[in-house]
Amino acid sequence: MSSTSPKIPYKIYLEESEMPKAWYNIRHAMKNKPAPLLNPGTHQPMQAEELEPVFCKELIAQELDNDTEYFEIPQEIRDFYRMYRPSPLVRAYCLEEALDTPAHIYYKFEGNNTSGSHKLNSAIAQAYYAKKQGLKGVTTETGAGQWGTALSMACSYFGLDCKVYMVKVSYEQKPFRREVMRVYGADVTPSPSETTQIGRKILADHPGTTGSLGCAISEAVEAAVSTPGYRYVLGSVLNQVLLHQSVIGLETEAALAKYDIVPDIIIGCAGGGSNLGGLIAPFMRDKINGKLDARIIAVEPASCPSLTRGVYAYDFCDTGMVCPLAKMYTLGSGFIPSPNHAGGLRYHGMSSVLSQLYDDGLMEAVSVEQTSVFEAAERFARVEGILPAPESSHAIKVAIDEALKCKETGEEKNIVFGLTGTGYFDLVAYEKFHNGEMTDYVPSDADLQKSISQLPVID
Amino acid sequence: MSSTSPKIPYKIYLEESEMPKAWYNIRHAMKNKPAPLLNPGTHQPMQAEELEPVFCKELIAQELDNDTEYFEIPQEIRDFYRMYRPSPLVRAYCLEEALDTPAHIYYKFEGNNTSGSHKLNSAIAQAYYAKKQGLKGVTTETGAGQWGTALSMACSYFGLDCKVYMVKVSYEQKPFRREVMRVYGADVTPSPSETTQIGRKILADHPGTTGSLGCAISEAVEAAVSTPGYRYVLGSVLNQVLLHQSVIGLETEAALAKYDIVPDIIIGCAGGGSNLGGLIAPFMRDKINGKLDARIIAVEPASCPSLTRGVYAYDFCDTGMVCPLAKMYTLGSGFIPSPNHAGGLRYHGMSSVLSQLYDDGLMEAVSVEQTSVFEAAERFARVEGILPAPESSHAIKVAIDEALKCKETGEEKNIVFGLTGTGYFDLVAYEKFHNGEMTDYVPSDADLQKSISQLPVID
Repeated sequence: MSSTSPKIPYKIYLEESEMPKAWYNIRHAMKNKPAPLLNPGTHQPMQAEELEPVFCKELIAQELDNDTEYFEIPQEIRDFYRMYRPSPLVRAYCLEEALDTPAHIYYKFEGNNTSGSHKLNSAIAQAYYAKKQGLKGVTTETGAGQWGTALSMACSYFGLDCKVYMVKVSYEQKPFRREVMRVYGADVTPSPSETTQIGRKILADHPGTTGSLGCAISEAVEAAVSTPGYRYVLGSVLNQVLLHQSVIGLETEAALAKYDIVPDIIIGCAGGGSNLGGLIAPFMRDKINGKLDARIIAVEPASCPSLTRGVYAYDFCDTGMVCPLAKMYTLGSGFIPSPNHAGGLRYHGMSSVLSQLYDDGLMEAVSVEQTSVFEAAERFARVEGILPAPESSHAIKVAIDEALKCKETGEEKNIVFGLTGTGYFDLVAYEKFHNGEMTDYVPSDADLQKSISQLPVID
Repeated sequence: MSSTSPKIPYKIYLEESEMPKAWYNIRHAMKNKPAPLLNPGTHQPMQAEELEPVFCKELIAQELDNDTEYFEIPQEIRDFYRMYRPSPLVRAYCLEEALDTPAHIYYKFEGNNTSGSHKLNSAIAQAYYAKKQGLKGVTTETGAGQWGTALSMACSYFGLDCKVYMVKVSYEQKPFRREVMRVYGADVTPSPSETTQIGRKILADHPGTTGSLGCAISEAVEAAVSTPGYRYVLGSVLNQVLLHQSVIGLETEAALAKYDIVPDIIIGCAGGGSNLGGLIAPFMRDKINGKLDARIIAVEPASCPSLTRGVYAYDFCDTGMVCPLAKMYTLGSGFIPSPNHAGGLRYHGMSSVLSQLYDDGLMEAVSVEQTSVFEAAERFARVEGILPAPESSHAIKVAIDEALKCKETGEEKNIVFGLTGTGYFDLVAYEKFHNGEMTDYVPSDADLQKSISQLPVID
């Protein structure tokens, strides 16, 4: 911070007029583009027409476009964004004081909307394009429930039907998530279910399974392609989702610029990669172009460590192997996280964009165990006032670690992290943590080897 | 709105520098001051010394002071306020469109903090004065749980112990509320309990009772006066609480002034009166002084209708009759709302300040039934994106009613209401509503007559 800059407020808000008018496509800046989706039968790059039975047309165009730098945000979506955006970039003065660190900590808080997370940024976009295409409804999966809630809100806004397959363990641990979706008129089914062919097969092969995002995706895709007037939408992993989530990064960039703050470390939790990919988009561009020398860190759970312990290869996006193949860091589509894993970040793979950036050495990755994550969450809550989601708390954990390193070295680094959402629906997990019943789980090498050995063979 | 005014944004935010630096005391403007608290034994006005075993000294000074116009907000409290304030004043464009009304609807949204409501505004003030007095901890009661959560956060921030008596029906309906309080280190007991003399007496007299705020207050007061280093704090009803909550009204006034908006109708839900009293403070001053010609409407549940069906008289503030007597609109301290009553607004009486203003004809009051409140809540959630608390939804219901009247008459009125909080912990009630299991309850005249007949006789 230069000496002439004004004092930085607790919360940096943009004016509505300063909100982004276009999404930024990080693929435009990437020297090595993410690998294309492949047809699971022919192993040839998927063409737009092949994707049309599953996805909305305009979203397919966004998905396949590595070259367009900016996509204009339609006015209808910008109107909706104004209901809960711009989101604040918060200077964590109280956390800094509690840690006694010279670091300056900032977090972009995406939890101040009823869906409770950043997922709404892409949900409203996907619902908009579905409506524009004249569809009757959409299907989707949800893990921790944030995406399902966000999509329910978005569909309600545009008058679309919304059918959600919710990973069974979350459905059972988060009874109130279903009720919020019901407020918005959604139909919620625990997955795996008897309502689809693939669900029945998974239940037969894995009796008593608590489900996974991969299973739920298969069911939602099957439901979409077998129901006239429906398409499938996805809350993470896909290029289009990272595109929509760039609104997080663009706002963060604009807020930092108001006070001449240059980030030294940018941290985000990573499951499928939607939040991280959105948060880092403009900063990664500057890093690729040599204009920014910042560390960018993905934080993943030790119980589902796709970047830190997976392989970079083509894999199925879903357990039922009905989706296109994507090249990504993956644990294998058959990987199912331990049932004691709280919250989201349960996906076996990672966004192709982030996988490529990681493979290119432009991004770091660390994995953290969940009891340490909840310790960080509670520490944060007590001084910053916000009850964080378990997912977001992965980023908090590493931000605190980095701030404590600054305390050792005396460095006044600017640490920016994404606080993706609130933990109001995660209190079963908090209760376990308080009762000392929460345990850590790290898959064995043998377990990972088993699921990774089932990757498809691509010539 | 004058033709030269800029277009009004979806959310009007103040700068941090524009946040109030002092609370406004509406009693200063009142021509008829609220009646003093009376000693329950002597029926003489309570002196500060008599209140000191129960309350913190500086809070007693605020409680008894009808003459000071402004109380400076200590810097420590202003620092905390900046963690979650200023709160937005939202223009409900989407709701207006859905209602097809010419009215302009605004709501002051106090739910964007982890306690989920406006209660934090007074909690942090009361915790601050307790800390300043060198106390070890505080006791309190909580109904729906909002106040208990807010106080837990505030006590955690200042390192105070926090002992919460939670109305039993809420304790059982809202298991996660307890867990949030636990994140912040509070000790939560369902009330009535066996831990106090008065709790044991109430349980003996009313076996199976689901509790009431009046019971829980008695227990919390007993616990405070019988534990060295503790005092009792209260989240509503008291003059000091309305004083702290004036920050809501002052921010609302400043936000409206930015766009030259003059309110025609101001609406707030009313249980003990903390939100309403805070929201209306500066507007009531202008109304008393003849500078504003706005209707001010208190909305209460038909199942606990202190203003619309109570009597204006001295009564006990608690079921155990250990507190001072207050002159207020009351249903009698023995009144216990029906167990089917969802959420807060369960108190048998009403703030002495608001009672006097209502008696002076400066304020209107209406009562609404809870199924109509949940209909309004869902309608609001679907277009404005925020899942409202049942309490707040009482104000939504009447704001919608007034906006629809404007549709009939074609009037372009400015309607301002307080959206006090979010409904994340009220999903049991939403579920009942969705399942058609929610019923309305209106106490019979005979029931009210019975509890009112037990008012103390004051010469």
